[in-house]
Amino acid sequence: MRTMPGGQTATAETDFDALAATALTRCDTVAECTDEPGRITRTFLSPAMERCNRVVQEWMQAAGMVVNVDRAGNLRGYYSASSEAAPRLIIGSHLDTVPNAGRYDGVLGVMLGIGLVEALAGRRLCFGIEVIGFSDEEGVRYGLPFIGSRAVTSTLLAPHLARRDAAGVAMYAALDRFQAAHPDAIDPELDARARAYLEFHIEQGPILEHAGLALGVVETIAGQSRATITFQGKSGHAGTTPMFLRRDALAAAAEWLTAVESAASRMPGLVATTGRISCEPDAANVIPGLVRCSLDVRHADDVIRRAAVEDFLCRAEAIGVRREIEVEHVLEFEQAAVGLDLALVKLADRAVSDIGISPRHMTSGAGHDAMIMAAHVPSVMIFLRSPGGISHHPDEAVYAGDIAAALRAGMSFLEGFEAHLEQFSESERKSCTI
Amino acid sequence: MRTMPGGQTATAETDFDALAATALTRCDTVAECTDEPGRITRTFLSPAMERCNRVVQEWMQAAGMVVNVDRAGNLRGYYSASSEAAPRLIIGSHLDTVPNAGRYDGVLGVMLGIGLVEALAGRRLCFGIEVIGFSDEEGVRYGLPFIGSRAVTSTLLAPHLARRDAAGVAMYAALDRFQAAHPDAIDPELDARARAYLEFHIEQGPILEHAGLALGVVETIAGQSRATITFQGKSGHAGTTPMFLRRDALAAAAEWLTAVESAASRMPGLVATTGRISCEPDAANVIPGLVRCSLDVRHADDVIRRAAVEDFLCRAEAIGVRREIEVEHVLEFEQAAVGLDLALVKLADRAVSDIGISPRHMTSGAGHDAMIMAAHVPSVMIFLRSPGGISHHPDEAVYAGDIAAALRAGMSFLEGFEAHLEQFSESERKSCTI
Repeated sequence: MRTMPGGQTATAETDFDALAATALTRCDTVAECTDEPGRITRTFLSPAMERCNRVVQEWMQAAGMVVNVDRAGNLRGYYSASSEAAPRLIIGSHLDTVPNAGRYDGVLGVMLGIGLVEALAGRRLCFGIEVIGFSDEEGVRYGLPFIGSRAVTSTLLAPHLARRDAAGVAMYAALDRFQAAHPDAIDPELDARARAYLEFHIEQGPILEHAGLALGVVETIAGQSRATITFQGKSGHAGTTPMFLRRDALAAAAEWLTAVESAASRMPGLVATTGRISCEPDAANVIPGLVRCSLDVRHADDVIRRAAVEDFLCRAEAIGVRREIEVEHVLEFEQAAVGLDLALVKLADRAVSDIGISPRHMTSGAGHDAMIMAAHVPSVMIFLRSPGGISHHPDEAVYAGDIAAALRAGMSFLEGFEAHLEQFSESERKSCTI
Repeated sequence: MRTMPGGQTATAETDFDALAATALTRCDTVAECTDEPGRITRTFLSPAMERCNRVVQEWMQAAGMVVNVDRAGNLRGYYSASSEAAPRLIIGSHLDTVPNAGRYDGVLGVMLGIGLVEALAGRRLCFGIEVIGFSDEEGVRYGLPFIGSRAVTSTLLAPHLARRDAAGVAMYAALDRFQAAHPDAIDPELDARARAYLEFHIEQGPILEHAGLALGVVETIAGQSRATITFQGKSGHAGTTPMFLRRDALAAAAEWLTAVESAASRMPGLVATTGRISCEPDAANVIPGLVRCSLDVRHADDVIRRAAVEDFLCRAEAIGVRREIEVEHVLEFEQAAVGLDLALVKLADRAVSDIGISPRHMTSGAGHDAMIMAAHVPSVMIFLRSPGGISHHPDEAVYAGDIAAALRAGMSFLEGFEAHLEQFSESERKSCTI
């Protein structure tokens, strides 16, 4: 028996397996809220998102939370502390999806927040817990990710609001409409008492599975460079142009792709991906004159990432010079790496260790709401193993046992967070009514 | 002064430059016969082809030829010999084009046939000359090349006739319609007196230009293998999947493309081309799970070609095994190499040497009517240099000086062909009224 936050004790009878089963069932129920029959697609402020919010709101209320939507469509349930002025821990993730999505990406993180509040079984802690279901992280509707967390951190700006969706509806118009339908919606701001942000999320990759671990602690969200590379050679007849007189754009691109893969593999933690390729004129009997391909490079260390991009572009250039192929590139965007909060990472390490899992520090190669939140409140993420590494696909899965482990680690985190709060102001600490 | 066929002499006053200029102008005029305004597209039995035939027919008639169309739409002009029973030399090429074509591919060969008859200035030879403008070589309308020469060699078969064009019109219906409009059309058969087929054609490649030669003699038309290769790996998140856990279909394909290019470059005369590539899901932030690409392999020697294809497929297989990528291939078609007639190749060599050009033997990497004709009548081709190696493109070009050289070499070929005919039956030789 262990001392729990709020002076309660964690009794053996807390049934984490049952809570995990509930979380899974709830993910199934949320999956039924979709904009596209037959597959899961739930986008920013869509009818499916409205239905999803109503369903999740009920679970939050049943768990003892006061629930609001904010004017950016975020669903926010507050489980109050033993005192009004108490600091807050935010536990959140997103409720929107990519098109033809799985059922756990984002949603599971929100369900785990609710599950942890339920595990408290009505006990009040010396800090409040706000569970947020962000209204947009995937950025499907407006080609802009993190609309929900941007709104919460007051970083949703005028140029963002002017964006239009595929139907031509500007974001400000969609928000106006939403607010008219929800006159009670609250300000989408970060509560001044927020002291930390915790996000559970499926890994969406194979690392934990490969390592045989249920959970991992994210210490960094990788920075990212995205570029388009163009190889301009000379098209020609596949039968009449001898090999030594060719300026084959695809042969040049292939040589480069192989070099990039090989170089990226030698640098620990670096990933480089070409996910798109097209060639012109794209006929079986014509030597490609033009090839366009994408480049996506990520690493936890921005210096390493930038040097890698530079290296890859130099290699392309050198291949182009040797083959008489013009190589051009456009850097589409660069996003700096985000380091998560060291103290919270240690807390998460301890929480994971407490339940017998060797703590594994990870870099998240994907972007998450935590990336936005981290600039405004100390943040940390805990990953759950993704079977087969599959995500953004209907086959996305999660083990019930891993969800139970995440709930156990979460309870341990809540316990540790109490001690952690002692670093905050005396007044706040005193508000804990242990 | 040199003895000409028919006992005439080639006088210095034959103005080959003027004939070359005329051939160029005629190519421009033919280019105006198009099915698509603004670009040159002239397909089998189309209205543009009808207009083209009418225009070319007039030039043939003015040159002293008896002109017919056959029931496959081939335009056939006969310049009679000094006797009715005399053997025939066929000089031909095609009058149809690819979409958005240049103006010389095929057309120039027909204009050179007419130009040679004009150079004879009414003199009759001991052999007749039939100039054929084939109605289809490119195969654009029915996805089947060589319809014209197949008809002439009686190798246009029932399954060919059942093919339908993009509008759903079967080939037999199109032929019926054509024949109804041309009740005088003759049988599309090879005249029994035909003894040889000579085709002038632009090279459509860069070899002659690279060698600084105006003309080249084709001794072989390369065999060809066409395949589609599929690399099936596993798609995954570009950010969350470390390099060592990827099964990247595009990385596998790129490694293979580089290996194929390198292996093909080491085998003289071999060309291997991947002109098409596509990947799925084709998103910048997703590792490609599936890549499809084409493979086109050509060589003059079928044994070498087949061994090369085998080698390339083995390399793909080996790369697949190492990378855990499933590799599959479909062999779309195989076409054996066609050797041209040795005696005629020697004749063409001498003709080219006569005008001071070092004879260069070439393999045609592209298919030509000569490939079909060669199975039925001894055949040879003479290539004209293609500036920049460009063909199947509006920028396709030819030097006026090279056309004049081709006409000079052609006249020399006619002279040599007289002696060549002595190998034929005594009666045929006697019909020459020298």
